[in-house]
Amino acid sequence: MLELVTPLSAETFSGAVIMPNLVPPLDSLERLLEYQKSIEKNSRPDFLPFMTVFFKSYSRNELEALQPHILGIKLYPKGATTNSEAGMEDIGEATATLKDMEDLGIPLLVHGEDPSAFVMDREKAFYGTFEHLATTYPKLKIVMEHITTSGSLELLDRHENLFATVTLHHLAISLDDVAGGLLRPHLFCKPIAKRPEDRDALLNAALSAHPKLSFGSDSAPHPVHAKECCGCAAGVFTAPMALSALASLFEAHGSLDNLQAFVSERARKIYGVNPPQKTVTLKRKDWVVPEKYGDVVPYMAGETLPWSVESITR
Amino acid sequence: MLELVTPLSAETFSGAVIMPNLVPPLDSLERLLEYQKSIEKNSRPDFLPFMTVFFKSYSRNELEALQPHILGIKLYPKGATTNSEAGMEDIGEATATLKDMEDLGIPLLVHGEDPSAFVMDREKAFYGTFEHLATTYPKLKIVMEHITTSGSLELLDRHENLFATVTLHHLAISLDDVAGGLLRPHLFCKPIAKRPEDRDALLNAALSAHPKLSFGSDSAPHPVHAKECCGCAAGVFTAPMALSALASLFEAHGSLDNLQAFVSERARKIYGVNPPQKTVTLKRKDWVVPEKYGDVVPYMAGETLPWSVESITR
Repeated sequence: MLELVTPLSAETFSGAVIMPNLVPPLDSLERLLEYQKSIEKNSRPDFLPFMTVFFKSYSRNELEALQPHILGIKLYPKGATTNSEAGMEDIGEATATLKDMEDLGIPLLVHGEDPSAFVMDREKAFYGTFEHLATTYPKLKIVMEHITTSGSLELLDRHENLFATVTLHHLAISLDDVAGGLLRPHLFCKPIAKRPEDRDALLNAALSAHPKLSFGSDSAPHPVHAKECCGCAAGVFTAPMALSALASLFEAHGSLDNLQAFVSERARKIYGVNPPQKTVTLKRKDWVVPEKYGDVVPYMAGETLPWSVESITR
Repeated sequence: MLELVTPLSAETFSGAVIMPNLVPPLDSLERLLEYQKSIEKNSRPDFLPFMTVFFKSYSRNELEALQPHILGIKLYPKGATTNSEAGMEDIGEATATLKDMEDLGIPLLVHGEDPSAFVMDREKAFYGTFEHLATTYPKLKIVMEHITTSGSLELLDRHENLFATVTLHHLAISLDDVAGGLLRPHLFCKPIAKRPEDRDALLNAALSAHPKLSFGSDSAPHPVHAKECCGCAAGVFTAPMALSALASLFEAHGSLDNLQAFVSERARKIYGVNPPQKTVTLKRKDWVVPEKYGDVVPYMAGETLPWSVESITR
């Protein structure tokens, strides 16, 4: 799978945040370097994997050893998403680590859901934890990954140290698209798509290049047999068609001028990264999203987008 | 499919309400009699198919000709569920038919969803239509089929001429079971399962044998390729295991004494039917739900239920 999808991300992106929810979770420098090497082997020189480790209690020494190699540490509540069984049950267990991260300037990336709540309420049920983290560790940079609700956007305005990413698909779909007609397993992800009002609020924030909101694909490939079955995995695969689809979406709403900021500048600023220069030229020319990449069905498979990637200059 | 599933319903039930959302919809006496004959051919003498026709504008003459052959007329809002494309867009178009049904004493069965609303709000968005129908046609018996919300239960108390059915699966699952972990297409149906609070309210009403609420299986078989795919059909197949599962559920909540009322007596009273006498004896003995019936995966496939059908006396 890594061999299949890494080149697809590396083609049109200069970098990607590499999430650590592997089995077992990526939580040591040794395994991180090994994983990074396997990504780089399947990648290209003008693409940087920004590595993360799985949040747990780390000693100050461990954090200092990790810091040069990571963009941040990703916190998963136990059971919130794919491969999060090793996640935290109680954030209170790791206050020393959070304090050290704040001191050292290591960002905290968060899958912000309380899995004990009703599926449509899980993100909302986590707002209190974000507020607690933001106020208890005011110098800790906290990124709410792949937000799906208008309420999460409101948190951005209330706390200086909160930032967020949003996926392509959460700008475009609501639960109506997943389960309002036929059931569409290829649109099933965690957090699940919410109400149309949530989607509209997220889309408006993206279109206006909200200063604290960045594109984050959360591109999650699963083989077709794990998506079309009796118990289907969560995740939408968007890496190879994200730029064409975003250009189409932004143009449809008269906001093409903000596309560069949303896709690139915000991420550089929020994560504090400086990936290799890469110029992707998009052209208004129909492009049909492939039905499959290997054994993975991408988002919008078979649909025609009005924008295509014309050229890439490195 | 009819040859496969009819005997499975006829085995443990004395009768079933036969829904008319075929393609094309069942909306004439001629086609109704033909469909009834094909059911009876695959059934047994101690099982009665209670036929319905698809709601549309019918003349008084048509209604009088249909009446001896039908239990009621089923109204589908256009696009609300499987094969409902021929459904009503505006109930106002059929006021004469509704008035005639009221005069003649023909029950109105309703799939109560407004498909223009957000998927989780569609039943709620239909409450106003139920209230309008109930007050405009006070002598019309209206059955809210397969209700899924606590709000629908509240309507039963407010209007004498409103009745309801509830399925086995809506007593047992919420959206958490459909999409809270892995996505479970075999639990996907219309109306979609709602919040845990809704399920609990429905379950409590069933366990206490609410006088205006009857079991209605809404058993809906689809071949496995239409359930495990990229756009999965709505419907849960429960006919062959419903009694064992209901006994298990009622026993778990100390309400076995009300099982007979919920499964049998309420339906006889609400629909005004008198099906053949059939005694089904359930025994507390483990029974494993088959993985498949033909090409159809049933509800709770492969799970062990503590109650089994011991004998059937006709």
